[in-house]
Amino acid sequence: MKIDLNSDLGESFGPWTMGDDAAMLDVVTSANIACGGHASDPETMFTTLRLAAERGVIIGAHPGYADREGFGRRVIPMHPDEIGRMVAAQVGALQGIAALAGAEVRYVKPHGALGNLAAADPAVARAIVAAVAALPGRLAVLAISGTDLELATRATGAEVYSEIFADRGYLPNGRLVPRSQPGAMLHDASEAAERLVRFLEDGRMPVVGGDPIPLAAQSICVHGDSPGAVAMAKEIRTRLSAAGIGVEPFLKP
Amino acid sequence: MKIDLNSDLGESFGPWTMGDDAAMLDVVTSANIACGGHASDPETMFTTLRLAAERGVIIGAHPGYADREGFGRRVIPMHPDEIGRMVAAQVGALQGIAALAGAEVRYVKPHGALGNLAAADPAVARAIVAAVAALPGRLAVLAISGTDLELATRATGAEVYSEIFADRGYLPNGRLVPRSQPGAMLHDASEAAERLVRFLEDGRMPVVGGDPIPLAAQSICVHGDSPGAVAMAKEIRTRLSAAGIGVEPFLKP
Amino acid sequence: MKIDLNSDLGESFGPWTMGDDAAMLDVVTSANIACGGHASDPETMFTTLRLAAERGVIIGAHPGYADREGFGRRVIPMHPDEIGRMVAAQVGALQGIAALAGAEVRYVKPHGALGNLAAADPAVARAIVAAVAALPGRLAVLAISGTDLELATRATGAEVYSEIFADRGYLPNGRLVPRSQPGAMLHDASEAAERLVRFLEDGRMPVVGGDPIPLAAQSICVHGDSPGAVAMAKEIRTRLSAAGIGVEPFLKP
Amino acid sequence: MKIDLNSDLGESFGPWTMGDDAAMLDVVTSANIACGGHASDPETMFTTLRLAAERGVIIGAHPGYADREGFGRRVIPMHPDEIGRMVAAQVGALQGIAALAGAEVRYVKPHGALGNLAAADPAVARAIVAAVAALPGRLAVLAISGTDLELATRATGAEVYSEIFADRGYLPNGRLVPRSQPGAMLHDASEAAERLVRFLEDGRMPVVGGDPIPLAAQSICVHGDSPGAVAMAKEIRTRLSAAGIGVEPFLKP
Repeated sequence: MKIDLNSDLGESFGPWTMGDDAAMLDVVTSANIACGGHASDPETMFTTLRLAAERGVIIGAHPGYADREGFGRRVIPMHPDEIGRMVAAQVGALQGIAALAGAEVRYVKPHGALGNLAAADPAVARAIVAAVAALPGRLAVLAISGTDLELATRATGAEVYSEIFADRGYLPNGRLVPRSQPGAMLHDASEAAERLVRFLEDGRMPVVGGDPIPLAAQSICVHGDSPGAVAMAKEIRTRLSAAGIGVEPFLKP
Repeated sequence: MKIDLNSDLGESFGPWTMGDDAAMLDVVTSANIACGGHASDPETMFTTLRLAAERGVIIGAHPGYADREGFGRRVIPMHPDEIGRMVAAQVGALQGIAALAGAEVRYVKPHGALGNLAAADPAVARAIVAAVAALPGRLAVLAISGTDLELATRATGAEVYSEIFADRGYLPNGRLVPRSQPGAMLHDASEAAERLVRFLEDGRMPVVGGDPIPLAAQSICVHGDSPGAVAMAKEIRTRLSAAGIGVEPFLKP
Repeated sequence: MKIDLNSDLGESFGPWTMGDDAAMLDVVTSANIACGGHASDPETMFTTLRLAAERGVIIGAHPGYADREGFGRRVIPMHPDEIGRMVAAQVGALQGIAALAGAEVRYVKPHGALGNLAAADPAVARAIVAAVAALPGRLAVLAISGTDLELATRATGAEVYSEIFADRGYLPNGRLVPRSQPGAMLHDASEAAERLVRFLEDGRMPVVGGDPIPLAAQSICVHGDSPGAVAMAKEIRTRLSAAGIGVEPFLKP
Repeated sequence: MKIDLNSDLGESFGPWTMGDDAAMLDVVTSANIACGGHASDPETMFTTLRLAAERGVIIGAHPGYADREGFGRRVIPMHPDEIGRMVAAQVGALQGIAALAGAEVRYVKPHGALGNLAAADPAVARAIVAAVAALPGRLAVLAISGTDLELATRATGAEVYSEIFADRGYLPNGRLVPRSQPGAMLHDASEAAERLVRFLEDGRMPVVGGDPIPLAAQSICVHGDSPGAVAMAKEIRTRLSAAGIGVEPFLKP
């Protein structure tokens, strides 16, 4: 048994810092690096790429709506084709800086509101997959487990991996508990780790208001920007290892 | 005898249009396409790349300071390494959209204040050349004739081409007449064309306040955003052809 | 009988020009000036305020979503309170520059998607009205005739005026014909002028697919950024005058 | 004997936090609040204005170059008139939100590179003073002690106050020790407080490489965004009070 740990990183901007990227990069096996859309800038991209490459962490591009003020959490009305071009520009920018940093971008995971839309809107999912497929580097897609983005990528024959969230509650239909409802967030690292170990042992995820459901996942997303993020990530990694689960990237180094 | 005609294109932004890109792309043989720094956005990049590719016009990236309000004409204080990363991000973004548009970026020409600084500051020139060299696609550099950027590129063994300006006056030292002085601009298309034909015939450029000077150039820059730009470009192309000078890209299609 | 003519102006940005503000300011009696959100910058605001003040044109603030790339035509998801703060910041910015330009901001008209949302969402309308009421200068509101923004402003006891569109078709329910449907736009200046004269004479607006409907309006909005905009505005002004209708601002100079 | 304590606050942006504004507002008597140029956004402005008003802290506007990526620490080449318009727009924006927050802007202190330029360039200083004078609210200016901005403001008859820095070393000519040189920064709160008490007792500031020099100041600037900022500010306030020096705003509440 093995699983990947991924986190959204490189989300600082200019003078503003978000999270502790260096510490998280000591824990995760894959890094979703912001591309200058919802966060980041060329300096932040370069620094984060270097830190990831030095540690052998697999690098993904993490494009989002070009809306720093809203941190990519607001849906900006755009045609799917416009979304595809935005994604191509952002991933291309990260690839450009990766070339300068001696790093390589291996996959794409859309951020925030864009990720949620891609999960539920097949046209948006297809536009993102088409952009990813056109870009150089044979990029894989990292999608939320069971979503339209996962299906759209698989339909093209491209490589796709799916993730579950370490600290989010699930509903019986496989969706996340909305943040406004009880059970949306798991704040206790030990409880979160315990849930993941059980899921990995039998492939069934405990849910709010129902029996555990089957979910497929090659990666666990641990959040990087909340207080205690690093501690929770470390706890999860430790507990997974203790349970005999290998923590390894979903892509070969 | 042959020469390339290049122009700065794709400099619209969102709802705002600059110049008549489609018309200029019928005249020039190489297009310097803005990358979202001083101008442009993913939609503008995509549209311009498509128009250029359809016409077989050779495509260059035209990165500039990330300063739309100042249109890249103001020097933003940055370390040369920061400039290199900014250039890598911008050219990478254009390459990303080019992949989606079925087009290919072949060279890089820095814009405005960045181009002027790269012409006169060896450290900036080297940083840009290093970024260009690291990017995929074996990109050439298009530099202002006789500048530090041309020298820095040549020193690395990379491909470099140089340009002269169709509508700018020259000083005896090979620099441009500052815009604040008489003779800075040639407004008459016929006069501009005549000067270019003479330069191409004997390799000597007429200057303000002195004898013609030797200049090397594989390309002529015609401006795309002034009134009468398209008419001047057409007149120049017609006159060059009439004088038996082939108008061809400096890079092979 | 009298009516105001208003137009959205000051919508250039940095190096990019939109419309011919000086020419439109010779025709209209009220100017809705962009505030740096969907368009404009301090230089554009200053120049437009000066041109308007020199001509005695009444000045309104024209705040919009802070989305230049989308020109304020996309709904950016925001809480009504956030919208109120955004409007206060934008109108305050224009007032600050007006103080420097020797001009005075007299009213507020929301732009584009913000205007459409304020027309149909009472909470957004109230948030905008609350911001306008808090700002100095006893500002009036210019609303689309018959909308929630008009009602919300009137409910507070604040001054409100309403506008109709010179070049847009109306539906029997008083709404505009969507741009995707036939009859949405009137392209013929003469036809548009004729319709306005008839409306002003009997207070009933011809509609697509029904009998003319009663509409109240103290102002006619003429668009400033389309080809032929100035010509249509002039034609309308001339035809109104010829019909004995006074073209005067809705606010006293 | 009495003195004001001021700090640069409201410098968060969107999802990114800078400093601990609430804690600093419990210590200082005047708050320089960013205006959306080098930092901040309407939400941050509103929140900071509210926090300051609740504590009775005097509010100043803190305009800076519209360069979030550089945090207003880079000189953006602009004509002094352009600077004046930028300042008017930013201060106006803060005034607009202050009106909504039930707060009042009382003075202006330029930020970072703009403040340094205003200190040393009389034309820039005059342009800023002219903008401040044109704005409503009879705004005072807070200038670095002994600079062109202080002189330019005084020459207009407008109210001006001057500040010294709690944690920066001074040279015999009254300028700050450049950050690249030894003695530029005082990191020890106790040492910084001791120096200020001595300065306030005899009006002479200890300098690096010379005898103490006379300096006039009505305010002490304590930085808000460095680690230990709040602790140093508290220590200074405590030590000033212990020495019998009243900590009071330079403007009457």
